[in-house]
Amino acid sequence: MPRPARLGLCAACHGADGEATMPGVPNLAGQRLDYLRDALAQYRDGRRDVPVMRTAIGALGAADLDALARWYSAQPTARQAQP
Amino acid sequence: MPRPARLGLCAACHGADGEATMPGVPNLAGQRLDYLRDALAQYRDGRRDVPVMRTAIGALGAADLDALARWYSAQPTARQAQP
Repeated sequence: MPRPARLGLCAACHGADGEATMPGVPNLAGQRLDYLRDALAQYRDGRRDVPVMRTAIGALGAADLDALARWYSAQPTARQAQP
Repeated sequence: MPRPARLGLCAACHGADGEATMPGVPNLAGQRLDYLRDALAQYRDGRRDVPVMRTAIGALGAADLDALARWYSAQPTARQAQP
């Protein structure tokens, strides 16, 4: 799977591989694609009120968001890489 | 780690091992403990408005909730078990 063009916008907090880089930020590696898409929609419309997510999502188009959700859902976990 | 006493309440949707059993429900296996605790607090106070989560959390005490968050954070992923 090619790296999404806008991956850097997410990777600062969620890691390029979906393993979060700071407290309070969820790991996304291997998360269900349907849940990730739903979460993005909730952040965008304010049902989940997290300003940094709303700002990040506002900078992205639908195709970018879908590529990012697919990327993270497809990543293996850190614990899988280091058994 | 012993199975939490109230695991069954969560496992119907999230699986006993943290791999979700139905669409729209997040996997919890290996999720960051700080994020799980924060999410539980948000569901409880309505910042994340998901009635089934509010109902489930309302049936549990603080010690139960903490045991459940620790349980799911400590579970390996399904992809780890089936490489």
